Amino acid sequence: MSATTDNLSAILYKKNDLRLEQRPIPEPKDDEVLLKMHSVGICGSDVHYLVNGAIGDFVVRSPMVLGHEASGIVAKVGKNVTNLKEGDRVAIEPGVPCRYCKFCKDGKYNLCPDVIFCATPPIDGNLCRYYTHAADFCYKLPDHVSLEEGALLEPLSVGVHACRRAGITLGSVVLVTGAGPIGLVSLLAAKAMGASRVIITDIVAHRLEVAKEIGADDTLLMGKVSTEEAAQQIEKILGRQPDKTIECSGAEPCIQLAIQATESGGVIVLVGLGPPKVNVPLVNAACREIDIRGVFRYANDYPLALSMVASGKLNVKKLITHNFKLEETAQAYETARTGAGGAIKVMINCLKE
Amino acid sequence: MSATTDNLSAILYKKNDLRLEQRPIPEPKDDEVLLKMHSVGICGSDVHYLVNGAIGDFVVRSPMVLGHEASGIVAKVGKNVTNLKEGDRVAIEPGVPCRYCKFCKDGKYNLCPDVIFCATPPIDGNLCRYYTHAADFCYKLPDHVSLEEGALLEPLSVGVHACRRAGITLGSVVLVTGAGPIGLVSLLAAKAMGASRVIITDIVAHRLEVAKEIGADDTLLMGKVSTEEAAQQIEKILGRQPDKTIECSGAEPCIQLAIQATESGGVIVLVGLGPPKVNVPLVNAACREIDIRGVFRYANDYPLALSMVASGKLNVKKLITHNFKLEETAQAYETARTGAGGAIKVMINCLKE
Amino acid sequence: MSATTDNLSAILYKKNDLRLEQRPIPEPKDDEVLLKMHSVGICGSDVHYLVNGAIGDFVVRSPMVLGHEASGIVAKVGKNVTNLKEGDRVAIEPGVPCRYCKFCKDGKYNLCPDVIFCATPPIDGNLCRYYTHAADFCYKLPDHVSLEEGALLEPLSVGVHACRRAGITLGSVVLVTGAGPIGLVSLLAAKAMGASRVIITDIVAHRLEVAKEIGADDTLLMGKVSTEEAAQQIEKILGRQPDKTIECSGAEPCIQLAIQATESGGVIVLVGLGPPKVNVPLVNAACREIDIRGVFRYANDYPLALSMVASGKLNVKKLITHNFKLEETAQAYETARTGAGGAIKVMINCLKE
Amino acid sequence: MSATTDNLSAILYKKNDLRLEQRPIPEPKDDEVLLKMHSVGICGSDVHYLVNGAIGDFVVRSPMVLGHEASGIVAKVGKNVTNLKEGDRVAIEPGVPCRYCKFCKDGKYNLCPDVIFCATPPIDGNLCRYYTHAADFCYKLPDHVSLEEGALLEPLSVGVHACRRAGITLGSVVLVTGAGPIGLVSLLAAKAMGASRVIITDIVAHRLEVAKEIGADDTLLMGKVSTEEAAQQIEKILGRQPDKTIECSGAEPCIQLAIQATESGGVIVLVGLGPPKVNVPLVNAACREIDIRGVFRYANDYPLALSMVASGKLNVKKLITHNFKLEETAQAYETARTGAGGAIKVMINCLKE
Repeated sequence: MSATTDNLSAILYKKNDLRLEQRPIPEPKDDEVLLKMHSVGICGSDVHYLVNGAIGDFVVRSPMVLGHEASGIVAKVGKNVTNLKEGDRVAIEPGVPCRYCKFCKDGKYNLCPDVIFCATPPIDGNLCRYYTHAADFCYKLPDHVSLEEGALLEPLSVGVHACRRAGITLGSVVLVTGAGPIGLVSLLAAKAMGASRVIITDIVAHRLEVAKEIGADDTLLMGKVSTEEAAQQIEKILGRQPDKTIECSGAEPCIQLAIQATESGGVIVLVGLGPPKVNVPLVNAACREIDIRGVFRYANDYPLALSMVASGKLNVKKLITHNFKLEETAQAYETARTGAGGAIKVMINCLKE
Repeated sequence: MSATTDNLSAILYKKNDLRLEQRPIPEPKDDEVLLKMHSVGICGSDVHYLVNGAIGDFVVRSPMVLGHEASGIVAKVGKNVTNLKEGDRVAIEPGVPCRYCKFCKDGKYNLCPDVIFCATPPIDGNLCRYYTHAADFCYKLPDHVSLEEGALLEPLSVGVHACRRAGITLGSVVLVTGAGPIGLVSLLAAKAMGASRVIITDIVAHRLEVAKEIGADDTLLMGKVSTEEAAQQIEKILGRQPDKTIECSGAEPCIQLAIQATESGGVIVLVGLGPPKVNVPLVNAACREIDIRGVFRYANDYPLALSMVASGKLNVKKLITHNFKLEETAQAYETARTGAGGAIKVMINCLKE
Repeated sequence: MSATTDNLSAILYKKNDLRLEQRPIPEPKDDEVLLKMHSVGICGSDVHYLVNGAIGDFVVRSPMVLGHEASGIVAKVGKNVTNLKEGDRVAIEPGVPCRYCKFCKDGKYNLCPDVIFCATPPIDGNLCRYYTHAADFCYKLPDHVSLEEGALLEPLSVGVHACRRAGITLGSVVLVTGAGPIGLVSLLAAKAMGASRVIITDIVAHRLEVAKEIGADDTLLMGKVSTEEAAQQIEKILGRQPDKTIECSGAEPCIQLAIQATESGGVIVLVGLGPPKVNVPLVNAACREIDIRGVFRYANDYPLALSMVASGKLNVKKLITHNFKLEETAQAYETARTGAGGAIKVMINCLKE
Repeated sequence: MSATTDNLSAILYKKNDLRLEQRPIPEPKDDEVLLKMHSVGICGSDVHYLVNGAIGDFVVRSPMVLGHEASGIVAKVGKNVTNLKEGDRVAIEPGVPCRYCKFCKDGKYNLCPDVIFCATPPIDGNLCRYYTHAADFCYKLPDHVSLEEGALLEPLSVGVHACRRAGITLGSVVLVTGAGPIGLVSLLAAKAMGASRVIITDIVAHRLEVAKEIGADDTLLMGKVSTEEAAQQIEKILGRQPDKTIECSGAEPCIQLAIQATESGGVIVLVGLGPPKVNVPLVNAACREIDIRGVFRYANDYPLALSMVASGKLNVKKLITHNFKLEETAQAYETARTGAGGAIKVMINCLKE
């Protein structure tokens, strides 16, 4: 590694106060690697922190580096690291759990109460030049997988986790509500897992066009119809009810629709996060033995997401609509916030020119 | 069979119009048996039909025999019946599915849209002297299992199904909300499946005493505290959060409590049926990957319930608080309706003296 | 239906005694359809009956019509049939279970001891002009799915069932041992269910070429190496051990290889049927918590297989290497028996010209 | 802790060379505790190392402290330890995994290739006065649970793990082959998980008497009958075939019996470890879709085992037939080796008098 000291970092001081500042380059601990950051995508949660200064109980109380959908190049390895070496290109799984609690021992490390997760206050993210991370949560990319794709493994892992929680398999007929980035990656994952048909809904026509392009079998533009009518439209289009529904909007009407539209004995996965309380026809779901399952991030999904991208079965590149440099972070966030120019995924490149 | 023609039957004509009348004794079809009815328990749904004339979309539009928690003695067998013979004492699983649809083929016959279910309009129940039923949905009782216990297999199967849907196993820590008959059988099933600790809640102290007697480790009388406070009380009593919750009340606050009280990664099963829509903190459940699963009756649970009663591991007899004769049906229903005398399960004997 | 009386049928009298004879055209029962047969594939078991007159305890003791991989056109419907009408083109699931036993009720109807299965002595198959079958085990083909594809749903369902039993999902790394028809359909199903990589082995190079054409990522021609060496070769090719193995040969060395090659915590599914007893390193599998699961035919798999073929995600047509007319049955069987001309799937057309 | 320097340790130098010698008292690392050892049971594997100097590839090449079924009292805590304090009485889960590999992350830490396991060469066990262990693999015992019971959690966890792998639940009918310590704990676990009936076999009548005492419903003394005949006897006794079989002997005939005796669609779990290769009717199991699953130690089972002992539902104390002091280790091992006096579980107390 050259003796650079440049570690320009995108730091959120508080609501609507995002600054680019220098931070010291950190030293990797024994089981960590130092990464020269490459690509960092902007997630809805990042924008939410910027605009609101908080998400629920997570409040930005001191300056925090943003960014958690990221990839980088190994610049230095801690003394116990054996799985990586300098120069390796890696995708970064942003949450590192405690490894000691019962959730960690039981394979559900995403539920670890002591997880350290990038850009969740007060933990710093990795929208910067240099960053250290647990080596075993960095996944080496094959030569033919780009670092942009590596960064996209983060949202893709959300979709993979959602579809695994849904139990999507060969012949599943799937409804995805919401065609934002998470809806789109859920669509991709569902198709890769054998869904025979996927219908996706949104209130923005442009998003449905993108969904069509990347593989949606059917789309439904949600208009002013009731959720009951929308459920009937979906059944009519598919010729039957979907047995799996991935709810990616968080909106109360969409949760209602999910319950009304899903087949008896089916599964609804709630990925979108909406208001603290929602008014829903729970007895309808219960009487028809529909499972309602939540998802929180992902666990053991990065390797699967990577294997699918590496095998060429799953093309995530089309999700990137805009590219910016680290120095243009403010503009990148503004694009993501407004959705200007049909923005789906906005990607920031952290390499110094 | 003696040449009796007495088939006194408890027939609901309409709301609050229950009559005892003679009906012809039916002939069993080829795969059916004729049963001399013995014991028929009263379920909350029976009372609901009596008082309201309907449950949701199921409306009593023509006279219907009540009763579906039943046992009887085989009086005659259809020509294709091989599993039973005259004189066999049997528990009657009250729903007979179509055997042809995809739910039937997939082992989820309780979701069969064409199921014929006793005392669900317009299908007659079996609170009468003689009744015919599919032989393969009649389960022969061993000599040491009473016909009263046979009738109790029906509610017990609901509890067994709920606990199986919850995935209760060795070491499960279980919250049961509601200590009516279904809450109590869920408690019994949970303990038999290896739950190390079961706490049960209710708003009636007497019910909790019964729960204690039949095996509850802890009870909580729900007072005027908020659901958040109740959740904290439960965690304090148990020393941890329950990982499985069986919601048996149908009340909105209990569903809220279930979500707040259950451990991350846990399961809530909704057995109680409340209002069509409820206002619930779904995002709390979703973010903590709590599954919310419904149950509808039971499927493949009668044999399990019977095996547990037969093995002596599970004692359901304590649930019977009142006994009546068929001729006293009106009084029996009044007792069940008012809960007079601490009524839990009211049993009607259909044998002619 | 024209008033034909031609029901030419391929009847196995005994070992090596296959005759083409007229049989009466049967009448459909109330829940059956009469089918004008179209395509019938030859299965290894058909050839085995022809050559040996028996498979294990199933002995051809009286003349039996061969054929069970079939499709046809509805010529007449029984009076209770509602799902089909005259003229519908259907794939025929050849086993009809009793619908009454505990296996049928539990969704495992393939284990029903009273199943009626085409061309398993003494039950007649459907290599003939006209044949009756339970309407609910006939699956209507969409217009764009051919009747040849309909017949291929039978072997494909074996592959789908095997892969479902194996739990193949996104990112699975799969070893298939044996590249005959069942190995090939297992390969197709595994890829459709999200396997990121499938390696397939055989002792015949030509079969591996076909496997490559239809989607195998890697192939291994089994030479004179030990099973330990073959397991090492597989690990070297894949860069890791497979987590799922579908054993389709039935050969003792392949079962040994399956155990040695599979990753700890993985699954082996035994599809191939070999000698009654085999000598295997079971303790190796047990100590590494590898599950060994069998498959028997299929249950609830036809709809999935059909949905995948209909969606275009799964192309089975390449498996058909030879086509014959019903009148040429002897020649068709000879081709299937010898594997002449690189025969994989030999198809017989039953329509009268 | 008093300033003792006594750390008498039972050290296996090589085959049949077991010595009692002093070792230095170790210092706990940051996430470890120092334990004053209390009870250490003798396992068959301990005896095997003593008599053979090796188990498979695990060879005693340098002196190794024996013992892994153990409990102790916390004497000192490492600086990062928060779950325990000095004086706590704990059961010790003897294997500590790497926490970094994919098995650890996926909840299957028993398959971790880098696990450190007591008394598996070259790792020292804990049959000594003082021993250090990862604090999170020590489980605090409630006051009413004895340290002898704490030590017995080790074999009990094997039984719990086996029964969980078997999927034993309400109404399971279970065959346990082999009534040694592991067969007996499997019996206890199966009953606690809801098995309605458990039959256990052995070739020693005395062991079956013990099995009866602790809860076996039926026993079968294996005589000179064939495995087919034994399978028929079992079916006759139970009135049906068992759906779950826990094979605890490792003997080839018992594995054959397990396959022949188990119901179609059932599960066999292999706990006993026998010869590297066995000759078994695998095709019988495969055709009837019987799963054959192995078990390796346990994972996430200690808390369940402890909860059952603590709740009083599961009484393991009857398994202890002999007690010795650490100074009498040679005699204790001789008793365990010969099974003299009907020895089932031989327990060594490590406290200095």
